[in-house]
Amino acid sequence: MSAPTDAQRMEKIVSLCKRRGFIFQSSEIYGGLNGAWDYGPLGVELKRNLKNYWWRVMVHERDDVVGMDGAILTHPAVLKASGHVEGFSDPMVDCRICKAHLRADQLVEKKGAKQCPNCGGKDFTEARQFNLMFETHVGAAAEESSIAYLRPETAQSMFVQFKNVLEVSRSKLPFGIAQIGKAFRNEINPRNFTFRSREFEQMELEYFCRPEQGTELLEYWKEERLMFYENIGVPRGKLHVLTVPDEERAFYSKGTYDIEYDFPFGRQELEGVAYRTDYDLSQHQKASGKSLEYFDEETKEKLVPHVVEPSAGVDRTVLAMICEAYAEDQAPNDKGEMESRVVLRFHPRMAPIKCAVFPLLKNKVSLVAKAKEVVALLRPEMTVFYDESGAIGRRYRRQDEIGTPFCVTIDFETLGEKDPARRDTVTLRDRDSMKQERVPVEDLPVILRERIR
Amino acid sequence: MSAPTDAQRMEKIVSLCKRRGFIFQSSEIYGGLNGAWDYGPLGVELKRNLKNYWWRVMVHERDDVVGMDGAILTHPAVLKASGHVEGFSDPMVDCRICKAHLRADQLVEKKGAKQCPNCGGKDFTEARQFNLMFETHVGAAAEESSIAYLRPETAQSMFVQFKNVLEVSRSKLPFGIAQIGKAFRNEINPRNFTFRSREFEQMELEYFCRPEQGTELLEYWKEERLMFYENIGVPRGKLHVLTVPDEERAFYSKGTYDIEYDFPFGRQELEGVAYRTDYDLSQHQKASGKSLEYFDEETKEKLVPHVVEPSAGVDRTVLAMICEAYAEDQAPNDKGEMESRVVLRFHPRMAPIKCAVFPLLKNKVSLVAKAKEVVALLRPEMTVFYDESGAIGRRYRRQDEIGTPFCVTIDFETLGEKDPARRDTVTLRDRDSMKQERVPVEDLPVILRERIR
Repeated sequence: MSAPTDAQRMEKIVSLCKRRGFIFQSSEIYGGLNGAWDYGPLGVELKRNLKNYWWRVMVHERDDVVGMDGAILTHPAVLKASGHVEGFSDPMVDCRICKAHLRADQLVEKKGAKQCPNCGGKDFTEARQFNLMFETHVGAAAEESSIAYLRPETAQSMFVQFKNVLEVSRSKLPFGIAQIGKAFRNEINPRNFTFRSREFEQMELEYFCRPEQGTELLEYWKEERLMFYENIGVPRGKLHVLTVPDEERAFYSKGTYDIEYDFPFGRQELEGVAYRTDYDLSQHQKASGKSLEYFDEETKEKLVPHVVEPSAGVDRTVLAMICEAYAEDQAPNDKGEMESRVVLRFHPRMAPIKCAVFPLLKNKVSLVAKAKEVVALLRPEMTVFYDESGAIGRRYRRQDEIGTPFCVTIDFETLGEKDPARRDTVTLRDRDSMKQERVPVEDLPVILRERIR
Repeated sequence: MSAPTDAQRMEKIVSLCKRRGFIFQSSEIYGGLNGAWDYGPLGVELKRNLKNYWWRVMVHERDDVVGMDGAILTHPAVLKASGHVEGFSDPMVDCRICKAHLRADQLVEKKGAKQCPNCGGKDFTEARQFNLMFETHVGAAAEESSIAYLRPETAQSMFVQFKNVLEVSRSKLPFGIAQIGKAFRNEINPRNFTFRSREFEQMELEYFCRPEQGTELLEYWKEERLMFYENIGVPRGKLHVLTVPDEERAFYSKGTYDIEYDFPFGRQELEGVAYRTDYDLSQHQKASGKSLEYFDEETKEKLVPHVVEPSAGVDRTVLAMICEAYAEDQAPNDKGEMESRVVLRFHPRMAPIKCAVFPLLKNKVSLVAKAKEVVALLRPEMTVFYDESGAIGRRYRRQDEIGTPFCVTIDFETLGEKDPARRDTVTLRDRDSMKQERVPVEDLPVILRERIR
């Protein structure tokens, strides 16, 4: 069963995200655009780290996967063939009292009756299907023929370009095509911060195989993906694998797992791993009249490959990382008294800033100069933040709150003023244990590189 | 004056891009979507290298710039204040003969008369203004109030979030906000391959400063950006700096440089570096009623900062890199006879694949095993491609054509079968000089890392 929700914890996380520059409401000074978010200086780095790590393990470290990057604007024929134009919709009702548009399957249940979450009303229109795709007009005339859609998933361009990619990559089954990019869904009721938004980013892999390999590869990819989350700091124990029951699965799917995470607002899906059979390629082959078959040189057989698709949400995973990292504990201040602190315990690999560098005092030229040398030494390897203002304890606290795993302080010992043997050593402080160790400046790049890789 | 155009060269480049998987027409199997392109396995890597390098030098290596990542869907109030809703348009005429929609300023001049590029007709409607923004409807009802635009540039979200970013980053003037992301313009006549498309990606920096710093910073950023192109393999001598004349500049701009490149289809803009004064922040401050002022602690003065904006096109720069890299020369085949070859001379830093690894023979287990060891050794550091099929000369040719700067061959000497002193050494071959050197396997990571950094 799902863990209890915790609205207060979620409020603190949303507030921290804005206060420290992870996530802002989009177009905020104009009242905001519902369902759209802007990532601030720290959010964009966290998101980059996630996407780059996904690309590294899903594309660069594998012999059997290549990447692509397709357009967002999509030809309507693509989405007709895929079934989106006809069927990509949610049931919608209007509240007869306050006129709000509401998702019929998400009305609030209270005292046995469905109620409007806006006004508490209980009188609704009949449910009708509302298509979630955004449409726009391409070209200089707004004729019917020039409609294009913003893609509702990145997947379709990988099916449509299957033959091109197969030819240029000279791949043999099984092999995959990977893509990271924006997708758009006109959600009736966006909610839960960035979790359900109208503009979002996906990391999708379409892994093509022979029909008899599908079931086994579904299991393989489920395990691979669970390991991925472990490696970005979302432990296996906080994830739940839901076997999507037959009646809730798309009719063409032979099996789907949802990987779920316990957010403060409830257990929700991070990623779906779906065995989609040959449905997509067959649909596009039929609709386009172009062969999307694969020729198996060993069996001398032509076949339409099957596909297993691990499809992850970038924004959801970023949010899960933040929720998982958020903690409150006790830490000593500059006088050694314990105070409560907020800390984001990001996996060092994901942390937006890897290392902060502090001169003990900002008005001591030699300390500042040495600190800037350390910044220059580390910068080719990692993101570094220089901070000289306030007491060291306060500077630690600021870095704890944004999840910086390591802080380096340059003090008088570094300058060799107290003990020549400690010249060119610095204090390296760990965010989680709050332990400090004394290390030579020249060893810093290697020590830190190992801990953040 | 502009270099002569070379349609044949451009045709070869477009054909190579498709054949080797750099760029495909979007929705190709359905006849294509005009003005939209998909990047294939090599194109996506080239584009990633460019974007990551830009982010490294413009954000990570600087103390005075932070990044952000704003939404594509944009509140109409933002684009009203910026002037886009009113004025972001091109003059359009219709050909009265073939009904084509045409950009009035791009008709073909022939024998002193404007002619339709489609049908040669000379009879056009009056020119009217056509707004280039894509619009869509957000929310469950297609009412006027729910219009949103796909952003026509990434810049506006950096102005709109100026105050938020300033507060969270505790920056002092001068400082910048950087962003990479998609933007959309409904071009009347998309053309020149990916150069003028309807969906494209930008790399923009908004660099905020005190009014008296603007002119000097315009020069500074022009020089910085010219150096950038040099560092990705587009030499200074191939770039042209156009000082945009007063009458062609936006009325609020105090100076704009266009950085142009000689494409095979003519001299065209890669990047604009514009001194936009305080126009954008002032407009948004007025329209939103929210202060976008900066408090200068030294002068105790409140001011609306000025801004210098270097704005580069990702797709244009990728295309320039490909055009610049494309060369035909002579290379020896396996029999030592000279043959013509096609080679992409990418800067190693930008090349999609950094190193290809070949076992001399594919049916010799020990060679294959050793080659795979070398792949595993190099992969954590760079993109590696393993190829075992065909003669070595042919394998070189395939890598030359996609711009792989280094090839490593594992032969019987590597196994120590001929001369124990050469055990664990390999042939390292350079794409451009075609020279081969013998190097120890264990030195490969360091040697290559130095050459591709």
